[in-house]
Amino acid sequence: MAATMASLFLKTPTPYPSFPKTQKSLFTPSVNFPVPARKSSRTRAGTRISCGLIDPDGGKLVELFVEESQKDFKRGQALSLPSIRLSKIDLQWVHVLSEGWASPLKGFMRESEFLQTLHFNSLRLGDGSVVNMSVPIVLAVDDSQKQRIGSASSVALLDDRNNPIAILKDIEIYKHNKEERIARTWGTTAPGLPYVEETIKNAGNWLIGGDLEVIEPVKYYDGLDRFRLSPAELREEFTRRNADAVFAFQLRNPVHNGHALLMTDTRRRLLEMGYKNPVLLLHPLGGYTKADDVPLSWRMKQHEKVLEDGVLDPETTVVSIFPSPMHYAGPTEVQWHAKARINAGANFYIVGRDPAGMSHPLEKRDLYDADHGKKVLSMAPGLERLNILPFKVAAYDKTQSKMAFFDPSRAQDFLFISGTKVHCCG
Amino acid sequence: MAATMASLFLKTPTPYPSFPKTQKSLFTPSVNFPVPARKSSRTRAGTRISCGLIDPDGGKLVELFVEESQKDFKRGQALSLPSIRLSKIDLQWVHVLSEGWASPLKGFMRESEFLQTLHFNSLRLGDGSVVNMSVPIVLAVDDSQKQRIGSASSVALLDDRNNPIAILKDIEIYKHNKEERIARTWGTTAPGLPYVEETIKNAGNWLIGGDLEVIEPVKYYDGLDRFRLSPAELREEFTRRNADAVFAFQLRNPVHNGHALLMTDTRRRLLEMGYKNPVLLLHPLGGYTKADDVPLSWRMKQHEKVLEDGVLDPETTVVSIFPSPMHYAGPTEVQWHAKARINAGANFYIVGRDPAGMSHPLEKRDLYDADHGKKVLSMAPGLERLNILPFKVAAYDKTQSKMAFFDPSRAQDFLFISGTKVHCCG
Repeated sequence: MAATMASLFLKTPTPYPSFPKTQKSLFTPSVNFPVPARKSSRTRAGTRISCGLIDPDGGKLVELFVEESQKDFKRGQALSLPSIRLSKIDLQWVHVLSEGWASPLKGFMRESEFLQTLHFNSLRLGDGSVVNMSVPIVLAVDDSQKQRIGSASSVALLDDRNNPIAILKDIEIYKHNKEERIARTWGTTAPGLPYVEETIKNAGNWLIGGDLEVIEPVKYYDGLDRFRLSPAELREEFTRRNADAVFAFQLRNPVHNGHALLMTDTRRRLLEMGYKNPVLLLHPLGGYTKADDVPLSWRMKQHEKVLEDGVLDPETTVVSIFPSPMHYAGPTEVQWHAKARINAGANFYIVGRDPAGMSHPLEKRDLYDADHGKKVLSMAPGLERLNILPFKVAAYDKTQSKMAFFDPSRAQDFLFISGTKVHCCG
Repeated sequence: MAATMASLFLKTPTPYPSFPKTQKSLFTPSVNFPVPARKSSRTRAGTRISCGLIDPDGGKLVELFVEESQKDFKRGQALSLPSIRLSKIDLQWVHVLSEGWASPLKGFMRESEFLQTLHFNSLRLGDGSVVNMSVPIVLAVDDSQKQRIGSASSVALLDDRNNPIAILKDIEIYKHNKEERIARTWGTTAPGLPYVEETIKNAGNWLIGGDLEVIEPVKYYDGLDRFRLSPAELREEFTRRNADAVFAFQLRNPVHNGHALLMTDTRRRLLEMGYKNPVLLLHPLGGYTKADDVPLSWRMKQHEKVLEDGVLDPETTVVSIFPSPMHYAGPTEVQWHAKARINAGANFYIVGRDPAGMSHPLEKRDLYDADHGKKVLSMAPGLERLNILPFKVAAYDKTQSKMAFFDPSRAQDFLFISGTKVHCCG
């Protein structure tokens, strides 16, 4: 499987240095659909050329890895520091932060970032500009850990075998008001929210923020690490393919024909708009998901099958894994999903019905209004540069005996895949 | 009482047309303290001159009153429309909206404004600029009212004697997810939040937004209406007094000597900064408050006494009533309190410990962290133009036998007025 999928982002045309500049038109006038000004080619610090791709939030992709030559020194330093052993989900966040998905964040949030996230879903930077940041990326410690840290200014972060994987420096410890965090992130405090049960309910009463220095890149050794491309690697790949538009589609479920139709159709429409080489980032979420979601390994196998069958074109598709854990926080979380893809070079984001949604844990209804995700995304501060593509629902058209975009004027002609609605992405 | 207090804003020096332009310096470097660019004098549409005062949000103060010549016509029109009878608190919001405290809002929120308020505490305007808006200003209707409204595009709003006081036009009806509204506004869903119990718990399952045309200015006939100056009237008064800085202080409790010291000291510091005539807007909240707060009429009597005693200078003090109801939503609500004062011409806002806070309704603790209000205010989108003045806590200094600013290095010398802390404003 790995070889087949890897080929998806290796078999590419030779890149050439200039990009066509065409007048773009809108194809979904009903939603916020700004066409970003195209940047001219420029070379970033380092060897990567990001010509034409959307700029990362804050202007520069943050990578938090320690230089190779410094690793031994940092490992030694870590041994002398008070330490925090990370949970599996904490480690996923270290992964996310280390590669710059949350650029310009440089580590777990300090209180000022936490408060801005909770209240405004965005961060104001030193220059007055605003970036989106809708879910708290925080590390909890309990009373005894706090006491052990004392007045230290740095702590070591350990994996489950007590190996130091990072140093968190210039730390700030502040109160973890769990009730307020949950209420403002999920819009409910009902017991049974998966991420809350898994990571917050029994977490410590303090949060510790600071700047991360990552000694060991986070790996999972599950046969899928090669698909975990960082934002920098994805940007490199898009540049190598000479993409002039990148449209991202997040999945946490198997691809079905409705999705495939949507993705193919999106490329067609981007070509009609004047883009010469729109590339799809098919980007399944790889971090924590709730128990009844389809496991990542199954989903990757299924994605492979769909691609082998030629439903999607390998030349214009990059399959990669997004390392973030799921919050299931609906309109709040979909902003995070979109923002992270900007950092990976995507300037179009496909948003579906009820993204990052789930059933209310207590009541017989969906937790979020199915349209709020799309609406909130289109209004979110810091996402103005991103083109939001609302998902058109695809269903089986009995009159044509194939998948087609649902036409509400002849609803009776369509069969939906699972009951009465397609609830498929995010 | 009324005559005495009225004199506070009638006995003023003759205004003169030009304002001193001085370099302002910061006196609280620890918080966000931008010094706004001073606008040159200009005449607004209409006869009022707002030279020197901070611009209202959106650039123009919104007033939603029907022209005198149109009133009869509008009253007649209202009789032909489906109607909604307003609660006391709904009526207070009509008052707030009608005078432009919530500028640029033109009526009860439509869904797009509601969602932006809940998620971002701010609204993005057509020109891309952002104004603060942290509490939902919404009108709920129940299923039968919704059915009665049917496909009408306007409704009449009636007072408790069924007099039409306004028309809401170009209406939009959308779902009222009470749980989500409460969680995102208060950061808790604990039962017992006063505003929730009073107005949300038993409210309808729908919200109705639209543009307001106010036929009858809202009056209370409680002997205090003359103190209810609109933002336009306050701006006129500040201009007449030739204020070059307006500092607002909101109270929902009696003034004590600690407050008085703070207000006097603030003026002194503004003078030191180079302002020539800083004017205090002493602005008690006049809308709904919880049962155990001191009633407005008592507070106004008490304010009068403090002023008669000469503790505050009538020449540089304007006492007026802020018509908004209280949410007791802490850091979320204090933004509303500050934003509304921008619209009334204030460019400085004094913020205290735990503004708009209260005890947690179920747990033995304050609902909000005492410092979060000040912090959130200093970071809030749309409030960058406002200078936030953190309240310095005043207490009784036993060594001097008088009220003085609390010095934590000799905490034992101070007596606090109520137990261990001063919890006094907002």
